[in-house]
Parts: sequence; structure tokens; C-alpha cells
Amino acid sequence: MAKSKANIGVVGYGIIGKRVADAIASQPDMRLVGIADIISDVRLRIAKERNYPIYCSLPDFEPKMRAAGFEVVGFLDDMLKEIEIVIDCTPSGVPAQNFPLYDKYNVKTIVQGGEKHSLTERSFSTFGNYYTHLGVKKTRVVSCNTTALTRIISTLAHEYGVSDVFVALARRAGDPARTNRGPINAITPVLGVSHHGPDLVTIMPQLDDRIHSLAIAGSWTLSHVHMVKVTLESSPSKDEVVSLYKKTPRILIEPGKHGLFDSAQLVEYFRDLGRPRYDRPEVFIWEETMSLDSRGNLYMIYDVHMESIPIPENVDAVRSMLEMESDAMKCVEMTDKAMKIQNGSYSGTLYGSAPPKERSLASTEHE
Amino acid sequence: MAKSKANIGVVGYGIIGKRVADAIASQPDMRLVGIADIISDVRLRIAKERNYPIYCSLPDFEPKMRAAGFEVVGFLDDMLKEIEIVIDCTPSGVPAQNFPLYDKYNVKTIVQGGEKHSLTERSFSTFGNYYTHLGVKKTRVVSCNTTALTRIISTLAHEYGVSDVFVALARRAGDPARTNRGPINAITPVLGVSHHGPDLVTIMPQLDDRIHSLAIAGSWTLSHVHMVKVTLESSPSKDEVVSLYKKTPRILIEPGKHGLFDSAQLVEYFRDLGRPRYDRPEVFIWEETMSLDSRGNLYMIYDVHMESIPIPENVDAVRSMLEMESDAMKCVEMTDKAMKIQNGSYSGTLYGSAPPKERSLASTEHE
Repeated sequence: MAKSKANIGVVGYGIIGKRVADAIASQPDMRLVGIADIISDVRLRIAKERNYPIYCSLPDFEPKMRAAGFEVVGFLDDMLKEIEIVIDCTPSGVPAQNFPLYDKYNVKTIVQGGEKHSLTERSFSTFGNYYTHLGVKKTRVVSCNTTALTRIISTLAHEYGVSDVFVALARRAGDPARTNRGPINAITPVLGVSHHGPDLVTIMPQLDDRIHSLAIAGSWTLSHVHMVKVTLESSPSKDEVVSLYKKTPRILIEPGKHGLFDSAQLVEYFRDLGRPRYDRPEVFIWEETMSLDSRGNLYMIYDVHMESIPIPENVDAVRSMLEMESDAMKCVEMTDKAMKIQNGSYSGTLYGSAPPKERSLASTEHE
Repeated sequence: MAKSKANIGVVGYGIIGKRVADAIASQPDMRLVGIADIISDVRLRIAKERNYPIYCSLPDFEPKMRAAGFEVVGFLDDMLKEIEIVIDCTPSGVPAQNFPLYDKYNVKTIVQGGEKHSLTERSFSTFGNYYTHLGVKKTRVVSCNTTALTRIISTLAHEYGVSDVFVALARRAGDPARTNRGPINAITPVLGVSHHGPDLVTIMPQLDDRIHSLAIAGSWTLSHVHMVKVTLESSPSKDEVVSLYKKTPRILIEPGKHGLFDSAQLVEYFRDLGRPRYDRPEVFIWEETMSLDSRGNLYMIYDVHMESIPIPENVDAVRSMLEMESDAMKCVEMTDKAMKIQNGSYSGTLYGSAPPKERSLASTEHE
């Protein structure tokens, strides 16, 4: 257990990076040393407004950043000297270029789900494999869709056992501010197996050859939606599954007829709630869509807010890798309380912290 | 086998009705006696342009139709006196109001998938149950999505046996001309089991308790897309399934990488092909999305052009109900040749015309 605050830097202040920075800054046991980027437009004003020390990732960009009125406190090297762990949220492919520098300064490294598993040879998602990451040096926090899948499937696997998973994903065209993305009036299928099934296997290897994922992308921007068929190894009632999810952190389940009948109403509700950026780091399950059949299959539809879902998992990864907290559930509770997304029960022993049941796919194995 | 042409009327000249009228008019063994509606705008100009006799469904609307320059040859009653079968394509709920009139003139009746199964206590889709409809008086041709599902699943069931079906549907917001529809930037889940699974069971009762469907609607207008997991009772190779679909009428399968990588490219290709209204009555399977796993599950994504998919099935229903053709495959061949959508093999004995295999779910039962 670390006694002083952990020192953390965020590289790449984009859609994920700016949220990770806020989440880290909110944690009582962490200190955001700064953020590093090469941008000099309004996006950086947010960091300035929040008094996050701003570092310049590439010296060539420093004059432009200063000219735009931003106080640059140093270069990436300078930030790396002061931190124990870096969370790299730069666009796909860039983290690999940064790795030699991270190694030079011997900082632990977290990259995002846009990178390949092979870059770090390890992938993280709290509900699936917190314990395999205690003390490790590098990892990748899986993407929004895989984070949601991990929460949903690991919970079922631990409680009921899971023998087969099929997920049909409907992805948004682009995040709301990504005006250069498409499609604008079409459905684009992923031509082959989507990466989500294999990605979940990097977290829960027990699912190897037991999961298949197909995906399409469409013209909306608010969230991803998953339609799943999960074959369970026992036969809970719907009420039991609803209760299980109700007490599970980072998962919400409620009838759509309460006024949350589509993703737009969900956004409106979270705007009214006062959630920052109307973020919804919780997976939201439409309760009416859940049903179980006589053959042990569970069906449901849930919403995945792609911009914010993996943020708490990034915070958890820090605690696991720096061995700041040896209990996954306590870590989740701490992260969520600071991020003001607390819901469900934090008193259980789910997520691999209990001995695995014989039939369960939930991992408690350390690598 | 009828010797003279069958006399047919179409009521409701909307998205389905105008296409059904064209399809009927193209058949060598059918005569389109006329179309009946209450509209008097540009939509009716198309009927006039094609020299389809125009009847007025409700006398109150006749003056407006005449004032707009349309020659009204009679009222609905007059048309009913001249026909053996009426294809009612009016909006949901209207056909039930027309039934007493159809009964009065003793005309056989086909309604569309927007009506409930209970209205006719019978539902039709060529590939599933052509033979159960020989000589019957009333039926409902199932909706676009269920028509596509019937073709896809019955083909697999007949050839390999099917023990379990899960379909995740992504529906378009509205047809292209339906500017009053939504969502415009959201995903709307169907809150519960979507009607498609139960609907398929009306055609293939053997699937009862073996199919589950979930559905979302999104903001695009071009087509529906299905992502399916079908558990087979035997273990074909992917090549074998591809070959099966290639020789099946009304199903196309091709790699997206040929340039058909999304629904917009599909539309563009069919526009260039010169298809009327760029209609695609064929189901289109993206070949790369198809795979089979070691547990007997087949996965794939396919496109469903909602405006045109059930049109050939309406034509087939006429031939079955009027006992004009006792062989389903010969009927399909005739329909498709006249509609210029001929593809695949029309020489087989699929679609319930062969004795069912022991393990097969394909129906050959007459009611």
C-alpha cells in the first residue's frame, strides 16, 4: 500500500486523455503531475482552466503552444522524470513511438484499447483480471466495447458460469465531435469477426473458442449498443440476474419505460443529472430486453457510452500496477466514489477475488 | 393450373402497394385489374403513367382525385367485382376495415406484415410454407425482416437442420421518403422480444422456443441489417454454406471487398445496375462475415432492403392461393424471371417440396 500519493502523467489530451486526467485528479491517493500534448487550440484551454500542468510532447510544437497563451512547464522528458506511471492516450500507433522514452525513464505504462494487445503483451480490465496486474510494468486497458463486455460477462461467469457468448455490436459512426467520420446514412459491417470477441479473450482466456462477435457501424454518435446471447451453465431467474446487476458497480439496469427508452433519453437524463460532459461510465441495460429461455440462454440489449466507459478502469489499472490496493473491490469503490459514479454494492467479493467456482470462467489466476 | 390469367387488384398504392402492382403487372399469368387508393398527389401519377386503372377506395375522395386530373374508373366495389384476389397494402389496421367488403364479393385476400397474424390466422412466406397455402382464402405475407429470415433460416434448416436461432436486428429509422420518422441521432431498442422471432414461428412452427430476436432502430434509411447466430444440427464447411446460398434464389452472397463493403455501396451498385427504384428484393450476405465454429454455430451479417424484399413473396402467395402452380420452385422461378431478379438455381427441390429430413425443421406439412 503506497503511503504517499502516486505521481501520474497523462500523454495525449484527447477524448480519453482529458477524461483520464480528470479522473486521476479526483482520486485521493493520486496526483496528476501533468498532461502532455502538442495541441494549442481550445481543447488545451480546459487543461489550463483546471490548473493541470501542461507539458509539450514534441519540442517543435512549443512555440505555437506558448503563442496561443499556454504556459508550458516542460517537455515530455521533464514530466517522465517526476512520475511513476504514464497513461498514454495518444492516437493508435503513437504510444509505440513513445515506449523508448518511457523505458529510458523507467516509468510504468498504460496504453488504450486502440493499440494492439501485442504491444504490451497484456491487457487489463478490472472486472476480468485486476489480480493479474499487481506490480506489472506495462498494460493496455481494453476499448470501450470490450470494457463493457468484460463487466457484463465476467459478472455472469462468476455467478452462473458461461459456456458460450455471442455479441452483436452496433457502433456509433464517430464520437460527437468527430465531424469527419461516417457513415452518414448507411450501415457498415465489420467484414469478418470483429475484434471484440478476441479482445475479451485477452482478459478472460477461459472464453477462448467460446465467444463470437459481429459488428456494424451506423450513423449515430451517442453510444454503442450491444445485443447479446449468453449461454449460462446454471438457470437463474430473470429477477435473480436483475438483482445481481443492480448490486454490481458500474452497471445500471432499469426499465426503458421509466423514460429511458432509447440512447437519446439516456443522454438527456445524464445531462439533467449534472454528470460532467453527460458521461455515463456505467453500462446501462434496458431491463425489458432481458430474458432467459429454457435452454439456458440469457438475452439483453445494453448501452455503452464509448467516451467514458474505460475511464474508471484506467484508474484501477494504476492501483493494481503500483500495488496500491490488493483488493479489486476496494479499488473499484475508491475509484467510483472519487468519480461520483458510485452505485451498486462494493462489499462483495466478485471480480475474481473469490476462489473460482468449478464451473466458472471468472479468472483469479495470476500470470 | 389456371389457363386464363388470374385477375388481381391492389388496394393501397404506397411503398409496398406500388411495387406489388408492378410485380403483378409483369407476370405472364396475371392481370392487374387496377389499383385502389384515396390519394391524389404525385404518387398516383406513377400509376397513371403505367396505365394502371385507378379506383377510388372511398367515395368522398373521388372529386379530389378527379380534380387532380386522374381518371377514376370506379370505386373499390367495382374493382372487387372483377378480381379473384385482392392484395391489400394499406396502412396497418385498415385491412381489417376492408374485410367485410372483400367477403361480400368473395375475393381471396392477402394482407401485409404490418397486420397481426391473428387477422388472417395464417401467414405466408414462400420458402417456409408455400404448400400450406394451396387454395386458402386469406393470408398475411410476413414483413420484410421476417421474409429475409425465412429465406435464410429455412434454407439452412432444410439442408443442415437448425436447433437454435438468435437474430439481432438493426432497423432503419424509416423508409427513404418517410421524413417524419426517427430516431435522427440515437439508437432505440425494442423493449422486449422483437416480433421477428415469434413471426418466423408463424411460418415455421418447428422453431417454436428455438428462436429469439432482439432489435434496435437507428438513424439510417437504406436497409435493415441482421446479425445472426444459427446453431446447426450438422457441420458443413463455410464453402458448402456459401455454395448453398449461391444456388438459392433471392439470396446473394459476395465478399464486401469486391466493393460492396456497406449498405450504401450496395445501393450504388443496384442503381448502376438499372434496377427499378434501385430495389434489391434479394437478401445480400456479406461473405466475409460468415463463419462456423467448432460448436456447430453459423454466424453472418446480411442486408435486407425493406421496401422490396416481400414483393416476390406476394406474387408467389397469389399462385399458391389460386392453385395456379403446385411446385414452389417453379413458382419462384416464374415470379423472379418476370421481375428480372433471377439468380441462383431454380432446379432444386428446396423449400419444403422435398420430403423433410428427420432432423430438418423445414416444413412440408399442409395445415
